[in-house]
Amino acid sequence: MARSHGRRSDQLRPVTITRNWLAHAEGSVLVEFGGTRVLCAATVESGVPRWRKGSGLGWVTAEYAMLPRSTNTRNDRESVRGKIGGRTHEISRLIGRSLRACVDYKALGENSVLLDCDVLQADGGTRTAAITGAYVALADAIAWMRQRRMCPGDPLVNSVAAVSVGVVGTEPMLDLDYSEDVKAETDMNVVMTGRGDYVEVQGTAEGTPFDRTALNGLLDLAAAGCADLTRLQAEALA
Amino acid sequence: MARSHGRRSDQLRPVTITRNWLAHAEGSVLVEFGGTRVLCAATVESGVPRWRKGSGLGWVTAEYAMLPRSTNTRNDRESVRGKIGGRTHEISRLIGRSLRACVDYKALGENSVLLDCDVLQADGGTRTAAITGAYVALADAIAWMRQRRMCPGDPLVNSVAAVSVGVVGTEPMLDLDYSEDVKAETDMNVVMTGRGDYVEVQGTAEGTPFDRTALNGLLDLAAAGCADLTRLQAEALA
Amino acid sequence: MARSHGRRSDQLRPVTITRNWLAHAEGSVLVEFGGTRVLCAATVESGVPRWRKGSGLGWVTAEYAMLPRSTNTRNDRESVRGKIGGRTHEISRLIGRSLRACVDYKALGENSVLLDCDVLQADGGTRTAAITGAYVALADAIAWMRQRRMCPGDPLVNSVAAVSVGVVGTEPMLDLDYSEDVKAETDMNVVMTGRGDYVEVQGTAEGTPFDRTALNGLLDLAAAGCADLTRLQAEALA
Amino acid sequence: MARSHGRRSDQLRPVTITRNWLAHAEGSVLVEFGGTRVLCAATVESGVPRWRKGSGLGWVTAEYAMLPRSTNTRNDRESVRGKIGGRTHEISRLIGRSLRACVDYKALGENSVLLDCDVLQADGGTRTAAITGAYVALADAIAWMRQRRMCPGDPLVNSVAAVSVGVVGTEPMLDLDYSEDVKAETDMNVVMTGRGDYVEVQGTAEGTPFDRTALNGLLDLAAAGCADLTRLQAEALA
Amino acid sequence: MARSHGRRSDQLRPVTITRNWLAHAEGSVLVEFGGTRVLCAATVESGVPRWRKGSGLGWVTAEYAMLPRSTNTRNDRESVRGKIGGRTHEISRLIGRSLRACVDYKALGENSVLLDCDVLQADGGTRTAAITGAYVALADAIAWMRQRRMCPGDPLVNSVAAVSVGVVGTEPMLDLDYSEDVKAETDMNVVMTGRGDYVEVQGTAEGTPFDRTALNGLLDLAAAGCADLTRLQAEALA
Amino acid sequence: MARSHGRRSDQLRPVTITRNWLAHAEGSVLVEFGGTRVLCAATVESGVPRWRKGSGLGWVTAEYAMLPRSTNTRNDRESVRGKIGGRTHEISRLIGRSLRACVDYKALGENSVLLDCDVLQADGGTRTAAITGAYVALADAIAWMRQRRMCPGDPLVNSVAAVSVGVVGTEPMLDLDYSEDVKAETDMNVVMTGRGDYVEVQGTAEGTPFDRTALNGLLDLAAAGCADLTRLQAEALA
Repeated sequence: MARSHGRRSDQLRPVTITRNWLAHAEGSVLVEFGGTRVLCAATVESGVPRWRKGSGLGWVTAEYAMLPRSTNTRNDRESVRGKIGGRTHEISRLIGRSLRACVDYKALGENSVLLDCDVLQADGGTRTAAITGAYVALADAIAWMRQRRMCPGDPLVNSVAAVSVGVVGTEPMLDLDYSEDVKAETDMNVVMTGRGDYVEVQGTAEGTPFDRTALNGLLDLAAAGCADLTRLQAEALA
Repeated sequence: MARSHGRRSDQLRPVTITRNWLAHAEGSVLVEFGGTRVLCAATVESGVPRWRKGSGLGWVTAEYAMLPRSTNTRNDRESVRGKIGGRTHEISRLIGRSLRACVDYKALGENSVLLDCDVLQADGGTRTAAITGAYVALADAIAWMRQRRMCPGDPLVNSVAAVSVGVVGTEPMLDLDYSEDVKAETDMNVVMTGRGDYVEVQGTAEGTPFDRTALNGLLDLAAAGCADLTRLQAEALA
Repeated sequence: MARSHGRRSDQLRPVTITRNWLAHAEGSVLVEFGGTRVLCAATVESGVPRWRKGSGLGWVTAEYAMLPRSTNTRNDRESVRGKIGGRTHEISRLIGRSLRACVDYKALGENSVLLDCDVLQADGGTRTAAITGAYVALADAIAWMRQRRMCPGDPLVNSVAAVSVGVVGTEPMLDLDYSEDVKAETDMNVVMTGRGDYVEVQGTAEGTPFDRTALNGLLDLAAAGCADLTRLQAEALA
Repeated sequence: MARSHGRRSDQLRPVTITRNWLAHAEGSVLVEFGGTRVLCAATVESGVPRWRKGSGLGWVTAEYAMLPRSTNTRNDRESVRGKIGGRTHEISRLIGRSLRACVDYKALGENSVLLDCDVLQADGGTRTAAITGAYVALADAIAWMRQRRMCPGDPLVNSVAAVSVGVVGTEPMLDLDYSEDVKAETDMNVVMTGRGDYVEVQGTAEGTPFDRTALNGLLDLAAAGCADLTRLQAEALA
Repeated sequence: MARSHGRRSDQLRPVTITRNWLAHAEGSVLVEFGGTRVLCAATVESGVPRWRKGSGLGWVTAEYAMLPRSTNTRNDRESVRGKIGGRTHEISRLIGRSLRACVDYKALGENSVLLDCDVLQADGGTRTAAITGAYVALADAIAWMRQRRMCPGDPLVNSVAAVSVGVVGTEPMLDLDYSEDVKAETDMNVVMTGRGDYVEVQGTAEGTPFDRTALNGLLDLAAAGCADLTRLQAEALA
Repeated sequence: MARSHGRRSDQLRPVTITRNWLAHAEGSVLVEFGGTRVLCAATVESGVPRWRKGSGLGWVTAEYAMLPRSTNTRNDRESVRGKIGGRTHEISRLIGRSLRACVDYKALGENSVLLDCDVLQADGGTRTAAITGAYVALADAIAWMRQRRMCPGDPLVNSVAAVSVGVVGTEPMLDLDYSEDVKAETDMNVVMTGRGDYVEVQGTAEGTPFDRTALNGLLDLAAAGCADLTRLQAEALA
């Protein structure tokens, strides 16, 4: 089975990271993994949520959403339905947790960064593109804060990137596009730091349950993919 | 007072209309009025809302929304708040009414077109940019339908464009950006057909009530601005 | 085509303004434009919304709603549906903007007036009747405040009245009732001050777009109608 | 303690029942118990809720609401809050149950009557006034249906009326107004048929729990009050 | 007609009251009336709702809910539907009012107790079982507070218990199970103090309206049933 | 650091699985992992969701919720807040996916099983206890269906069990209770089939990111724990 962009099973799609895509946000990135296009905007707020006040610690959180016609078939707006779906909740929480892994709350001081990740166009891997792009927007927002001497130290202590892997047929593949994703027996999202440690591993058997050997193969693919993305993030920020 | 882009009081900001910005939608346009950037996606659905079934007539409707960080200060998502605000409702209804003015429902047959207008970046005039761009997305969607012989006739019987005008200080101005909009005494949005007739006139005294002379001056400015936009739409569709 | 109440195309329906219809409200009016019957209640609150605190300025706002069986076919309650519709939002905002045009916020001091406009019976022109009646309720509420020396000055610096006009067939008409409204090609609501200036002009082509001549004809009719309503308001308040 | 309207502890307030207060509803009543003023509108719909379809039986239901400024202090609209409060739910259910007690579902056929009871002004006893007025609106709606031969038989097999009773200080009183209601130790609402049977008895100790003797005294007062109301309903319908 | 558990028409079902069913709550009871099983948890909070602050008085409130499969046919979760139904609201309010009848707010000081009554299994009489069990949980929570010297006095000045009675066919019966409840012509819930006074009487004619004699018979049955429950509560607390 | 129940780091807490805890549900289990107590109810419905109709395939889904006082500090009800939180959504989806891994949709025919997992008491590992218990309730529900010959084949083709593992300090531990969970650097939930394959692996670095060695150690612990739970499920079903 031929892959889009003529790539091998262990290759990423073409990735582009465009910084400062928005005029108003303190950090903003348009990230593209092939046909997947996510707009990541970082908003700096001085102050933290109520439950954290007086702690001297900062906070980082995220919200993920898809534009209604980012997908092949239009989805109703969650604002119109009046409630946020489970998938949206789940991915917003995942992005927030992932980004928090590279932040030193004490060095951030009682400031917050909120990352809005809006999918403009979807072709598989929207959550991993969002994490990868949001890291760059976060880095820009933190640089913005440091220029204004808002932070007591350097809050950015690590980097994070994320990629999806999966077994399609019997073949493990890196960075699945939508057509591959719907056929995958197993689907895994892996979030790793720039140093090669795990922040989050989420593997799901969509079809047949998978064994330890398959799991190990997917973890190997993901580690190489995240290392590539870490390099691309560094180049974008250079 | 100097205007952005060094323009005169009767000049539009630089306008760009980029067609086919999205891969999945039947028509899609990224429209820019200076720093205002709206993504318009047209979705074709065969069938009409329940109250219109069996009439033989089609339907066109619209939904408008702003990304949370499209503005200088972040706005909470309406999906998170669980309800749609009055301004959003009002603008969605305005866009739908405006677009319906250029459609022959009978020639459309029992098909629907839904126009999603999402503001990626806001700098004044988002609703008028949305209408102007949505017309082009609608034209593309109708062309798509006609290629597939979905319509009994040619539903596109007119064009529509929209522009804002206002009195800033005592001077009437065309196509206000955000910094002008907040200072305007009077604010008016005008939607016109390509033939120069009115579809919608909405004028509001934000400060001092205005007299008939001021109203006439604004209507003149708007007519010239809409004529310019009509020409730009035609060029984009050529 | 004969009009209800045997009136000419440039005549209002019989208008009655009954003050003090409610025992508890600081100002209250039952306003009738023919078969349209709106109960307007003004509530005085000392203090202003959070975003206005400490400014020394007051605030005026409005909420509009229809009783479920005010219309020929029953409408579900918005409280039961759990959300407010776009039309309700739009009209509430229009009434608030209109009333604010006759108030000097500084003379009002940090006090608020909230105008509840509930349609008991609907026969076209509910929003214009609401604005016209709410002005009288507001005047009574401000008199109530001034008696109690709540305001630093006289906040009522103008009056406002509103009327609908439209083209039915080819004839421009004043103060459309429901049967005329559904047939109108063009529908316009005009809010004017007692001095004859415009506060709000909202014209919509329901059918064929309209030209400048038609627009001018409708504006003439509306000016005469608003002048009549201003006189009736003054008589009611005398 | 003197009662309003100079009445004895076993007397109703002045009661007025104005039929046909609304132009559109199949039955409508403005009912007044002293300063309490409730607008009751009956809507006839052919058909029944889904769970009752095919049974050959009709349905009667009710919705109760208060206008925001019907009370001394303004209450937020339930539509704005986005949910219906417990008290509103409870009273709507009570009115529906009460009205159903006078209807023969089989004679009604698969038709529904919905009673909207909107409190325009509140001075105690709004739910009992609503039930008493809604019965008259229901009777008119059923007459309307019978004229159009919509019903297989005569669905109105009884009448219902309701009154509040309570112990204020140590004295049992009929038809409490608001100033009495807030002082009452015990508060009871009684719904009875025109034949003197009970449809609903709801007694609550707001302060000290009450004994069987007090309960019996209140039931006696309520029976006399309901008999008076039944007579007034009959006169109104005559 | 034979009753479940071979009981007479004036007999309760087997009642069990298991204290301390939960590890975390300050008071908790699993109460069973035959097949009806309700988990009552009392939560102590220091402080009172805003409208009561500074009064020196405490507060007691309750929330009632049913697990989706507590009944024979599954009910959708109210959290999934996004709103609380009328019946739930009504019963929550009833439980709160009932429990407040045995509390001296002044002796409680500015503390609150919230009683969560969750129906794990339903077989008729869930609200009366909830009140009966919640009293025991409340007593335990108050003992817990008094051990920690949170209260200025002894807030528990009475006890409350509740039972349902009804007319099935023509026979008055105590403590109806579900199969009896659906057949009942009249259904009454009675809440009484341990001293035999009434806190709440709620009687409803589900079918034929009932007369005073029937009412008296039901009140007699209920008084005996509540006295039995009071004894069982005392034994459980001994 | 001593563990509760005096257990080693690779030992489960005492597990009990009580079948038929509810009278009405087609399958029901009270599952306890130490102090964690979850009530799992399986509801059989003939028919499938709309999007699956006519496929000949069945469906299995789940809803998870916590009673407000299942935890040490009371949580507001999601029904009262009017929306479901992200954590609840996420866990409901996880349980549904996990259970679907042991079902042959074709053998189930167009029938649905809905698993309600309500946490009565929480002490860590509520989601893994829920999955483990829900499997047994599902097995009972499927047996119930097969007795009634509702299914074309045997839908239960596997078993699933789940356990949490985590690194507390530097020590990997099995089946964390709440006090361990809050201290864990890494937290992982693993769902496995009775044959030892993975259905879901969800690992999160709560503190320091973890390396491949730590991940492998946790996967080993989880495999042994799931095998124990599979044995306990089989014993309960024997």
